[in-house]
Amino acid sequence: MTVLERLTKERLYFDGAMGTELQRLGLSRRIPESLNLEQPALVERIHLHYLESGAHIVTSNTFGANRYKLEPAGLRPEAVILAGVGAARRAIAKHGSGYVAVSLGPTGKMMEPLGELSLEDAYETYRQMAAAADEAAADLILFETFSDLTELKAAVLAAKENSRLPIFTTLTFDEQGTLLTGGSIEAAVSMLEGLGVSAIGFNCGLGPHQVEKLMPRMLQAASVPVIANPNAGLPQLVNGETRYDVGPGEFAKAMSRMAAMGVSILGGCCGTTPEYISEMTGAVKNIPFAAPRPKPYAFVSSAIKAVPLGPVPVIIGERINPTGKKRFKQALREGSLDYLLSEGLAEQAAGAHILDVNVGLPEIDEEAMMAAAIQTLQHGLRTPLQIDSSDPAVLERAARIYSGKPLINSVNGKAESMEAVFPIIQRYGGAVIGLTLDETGIPGTPEGRLAIARRIVERAERHGIAPKDILIDPLTLTISSNQKEALTTLESLALIKRELGVGTVLGVSNISFGLPNRESINAAFLTMALQQGLTAAIINPLSPAMMGAYYGALALTNQDPDCRSYIGFAAPAAEKPAAAKDTL
Amino acid sequence: MTVLERLTKERLYFDGAMGTELQRLGLSRRIPESLNLEQPALVERIHLHYLESGAHIVTSNTFGANRYKLEPAGLRPEAVILAGVGAARRAIAKHGSGYVAVSLGPTGKMMEPLGELSLEDAYETYRQMAAAADEAAADLILFETFSDLTELKAAVLAAKENSRLPIFTTLTFDEQGTLLTGGSIEAAVSMLEGLGVSAIGFNCGLGPHQVEKLMPRMLQAASVPVIANPNAGLPQLVNGETRYDVGPGEFAKAMSRMAAMGVSILGGCCGTTPEYISEMTGAVKNIPFAAPRPKPYAFVSSAIKAVPLGPVPVIIGERINPTGKKRFKQALREGSLDYLLSEGLAEQAAGAHILDVNVGLPEIDEEAMMAAAIQTLQHGLRTPLQIDSSDPAVLERAARIYSGKPLINSVNGKAESMEAVFPIIQRYGGAVIGLTLDETGIPGTPEGRLAIARRIVERAERHGIAPKDILIDPLTLTISSNQKEALTTLESLALIKRELGVGTVLGVSNISFGLPNRESINAAFLTMALQQGLTAAIINPLSPAMMGAYYGALALTNQDPDCRSYIGFAAPAAEKPAAAKDTL
Ligand SMILES: [Zn+2]
Ligand SMILES: [Zn+2]
Ligand SMILES: [Zn+2]
Repeated sequence: MTVLERLTKERLYFDGAMGTELQRLGLSRRIPESLNLEQPALVERIHLHYLESGAHIVTSNTFGANRYKLEPAGLRPEAVILAGVGAARRAIAKHGSGYVAVSLGPTGKMMEPLGELSLEDAYETYRQMAAAADEAAADLILFETFSDLTELKAAVLAAKENSRLPIFTTLTFDEQGTLLTGGSIEAAVSMLEGLGVSAIGFNCGLGPHQVEKLMPRMLQAASVPVIANPNAGLPQLVNGETRYDVGPGEFAKAMSRMAAMGVSILGGCCGTTPEYISEMTGAVKNIPFAAPRPKPYAFVSSAIKAVPLGPVPVIIGERINPTGKKRFKQALREGSLDYLLSEGLAEQAAGAHILDVNVGLPEIDEEAMMAAAIQTLQHGLRTPLQIDSSDPAVLERAARIYSGKPLINSVNGKAESMEAVFPIIQRYGGAVIGLTLDETGIPGTPEGRLAIARRIVERAERHGIAPKDILIDPLTLTISSNQKEALTTLESLALIKRELGVGTVLGVSNISFGLPNRESINAAFLTMALQQGLTAAIINPLSPAMMGAYYGALALTNQDPDCRSYIGFAAPAAEKPAAAKDTL
Repeated sequence: MTVLERLTKERLYFDGAMGTELQRLGLSRRIPESLNLEQPALVERIHLHYLESGAHIVTSNTFGANRYKLEPAGLRPEAVILAGVGAARRAIAKHGSGYVAVSLGPTGKMMEPLGELSLEDAYETYRQMAAAADEAAADLILFETFSDLTELKAAVLAAKENSRLPIFTTLTFDEQGTLLTGGSIEAAVSMLEGLGVSAIGFNCGLGPHQVEKLMPRMLQAASVPVIANPNAGLPQLVNGETRYDVGPGEFAKAMSRMAAMGVSILGGCCGTTPEYISEMTGAVKNIPFAAPRPKPYAFVSSAIKAVPLGPVPVIIGERINPTGKKRFKQALREGSLDYLLSEGLAEQAAGAHILDVNVGLPEIDEEAMMAAAIQTLQHGLRTPLQIDSSDPAVLERAARIYSGKPLINSVNGKAESMEAVFPIIQRYGGAVIGLTLDETGIPGTPEGRLAIARRIVERAERHGIAPKDILIDPLTLTISSNQKEALTTLESLALIKRELGVGTVLGVSNISFGLPNRESINAAFLTMALQQGLTAAIINPLSPAMMGAYYGALALTNQDPDCRSYIGFAAPAAEKPAAAKDTL
């Protein structure tokens, strides 16, 4: 039975620390992975101790087996990984059962633009190791102790594209649930589930008590099995030696409580020994196992934060778009990305939850411009981005370099569009906007738009894309040219939500094209769409009328407890209470 | 069979002119009504000629039989009316069938404040004549050739309260359908149906062709049988003599077309003779009769214009109300009605369709203040008024002196309230706002509010008040104190509309009490209520955000063809096309 099959049926246990165990055996090395070649029997013995303590999965001694660490010492990642998997596999053979996880940690280098590691170099580094893990016939790859989602995305993509192994990932958060690079638990879950990893969790950095406190957020966000591999408490220096402050019994109790919360995979990191694993597996064995349940709402995310698509509607800023904007077009032609960033900063400050990014101009290289814009915007902003292009090549390039889970704008009901866009979502993760139009145009009735929406949702599922990752856009047409269109759109919205249960999105502003004082129409249309249950509205967040309509509708539909968000928006700054947290 | 019973079964015919017939017989008198006493046999002979020409209803020679005209000549209205009815009754006896209508025209005096005739004097004048008509056992009272709705209301009230006779009224409009005093056809229908008259129509002033052109508006507005008593065309001076330009054959053809449109009662006014009536009754006899159908929407009205309560929602201005307004309270205490008028003028200019009038302050005589306010406002404004008081005595006093059909604010589900307010509506006409609260308070559920609304509608019907004259207010509570109230109100609104088919009204502003930037919440709540099908919104029409939400919602819900009203509201004055006509 594969490790993934087994995970659907029972709780599994990781081993504890390798590094601290090797030190206990007096095997301190600058490059501990070299012991796979020098002292494979000792490494194997540690694995066997863990298996005998109840661990199902042993973690190969390959955490730092990347070219940057090994090559200066004259070692090859492939050889170290092959030897590491070999040692684990021999222990398993002796024990009679078990799985080998190839542990792969961060490179230790900072990613561009803060550091010098490029995405391509990161990808190549992990490609090399993932291919070796596959070649060595390990059972899974465990990316662990990561704290930079950009580096982790390169690693996961490299593993997806160069091995057949399931991917587990564990990250190191601080006590607030924040990565060293600023990312939240939910941002990590969002991106990693989008990329298709098989299990996600915590390791290192924190002890079991701190992980236990953060665990509800992880369990709330994740649909895949969750991992807890904490250290043996927090480190303390005693006589110049690092000690951890939680003993095996206390560790086992905390891990039991996490098992009861619904954590699927339990193990230890620094400071844990076979005794910890033994106590833990003994303590949790009577806690019933429950497979994780898929969460009803999807997220989109940046490297910093995640935004849930429902149940509370969100604002997508429309301003990073050259349509009808002379100055914006000029900035694109000059390659002046500061202008785009300043628009994005203004939208972010105004409370937009997601920012649409459209750089389409006939006279520029849209693919290169989009890549440059995404890099600039994702380094300068916290807010998740929506990649907006009609060219699938542009969407793919942007999705590949985006450090998070983007919203892709858009696919439509044409077979050609779906076959071009859905594989991009499948490969890089993402939620996607589905326009209710197809080869025959835009249907004039709600039923016609529903039929296209249904086709989009069904075809997406065949590509492994869940309905919750789809926002259907029933299309806003201009009322000045055909007045009944507004009602058709609103009815389509309600019908699609009711019949398909998917989220919805509208580009609001188009409704008022050609009319004076467009904000009045736009605000009324937004309010009506929100009343019909709209999930996401593409608007100008710098318009107080639009944001007033948004916050007003939330308060009126009982989606803003005590009107806190509304007051945060409406009250003069001096009177503002702490603003409600609208993203994670 | 009474004339009213017969009207449900067949078309009826009035006679033609009396005055011009008397002149033809050489009987010119300064006071033609004196002939009832001097030459009753000749008057009787004219009636008989009309009966023999096919008329069912003869009109007594009493048009000017009021004290102001008769007393200087030493004549008493009672005697003239008794003799006039006697002459008609004898002609009917000779002919074998027929009805006597006691014709009563305007006093010829201008009403206050433009003229010197007070409401009380007008009432007393018509009281005297109506009592005489009742005493003389006529079949109905015909108020004809009226052009001032204020005088006509006094006349109808006097007749209602001092005789048992059915009341028919005909008015004299110009070719645009406007009374000399500025009132529209719809304003006349609205007030008169509210007062309970049995038939309404045109007489004098215009010939059959002009009346035919205006007739669709009357038929569109009226639920009671409609009368056409035009002159024999337009008057022309030939050799110092007045002639009319439409002959009997042409007259009969035009009257036939009006019969086919659905006019229930046909006859003639100045210039028509027995020959006209004979041609007419011959021409129309094969046109099938159809009883008038009640119209789905009610109107409220001033003496100038009427506002339909549905299908397009209307704005009720909230500003004539002292609540929370220091300066307004001061104006009331000083009896400074100019301040109220200036608020009303501003609301009217901003596009409010109806203006709420509330003058309740603990320290003033509300009944006297309301009467003074209504007089000032109805003389200074075109816009219909909503009389707002919790004291039935105040409501009654105001309803009595109001020159139109007011909106009464309010009744509620308490038996005491309904028994006090419904008789006022029945007596003076009016639409009424029904609040969904009763002895036990305000129900917390839509079903509870529906139950009270149903009770109000049912009890109103027992008082002869049609459901279309009721606007149910499902009550706006403040979301800052209980956030789910907004949804309860919106759901109540939709439920009451769906289950009872009545109109609805909301005082919008209360929703945001205690919150900052109240307009954003108010505008969103208004938009949502309009989307749920709200009939009337009580708001501040001076707020561009509120009016923008209103016009925006109309455009979005396909209730504003070509967005004309929206553009009229939103475009800078210079760009405005002719604004859409929103009232009649
Ligand atoms: Zn660790
Ligand atoms: Zn570790
Ligand atoms: Zn006449």
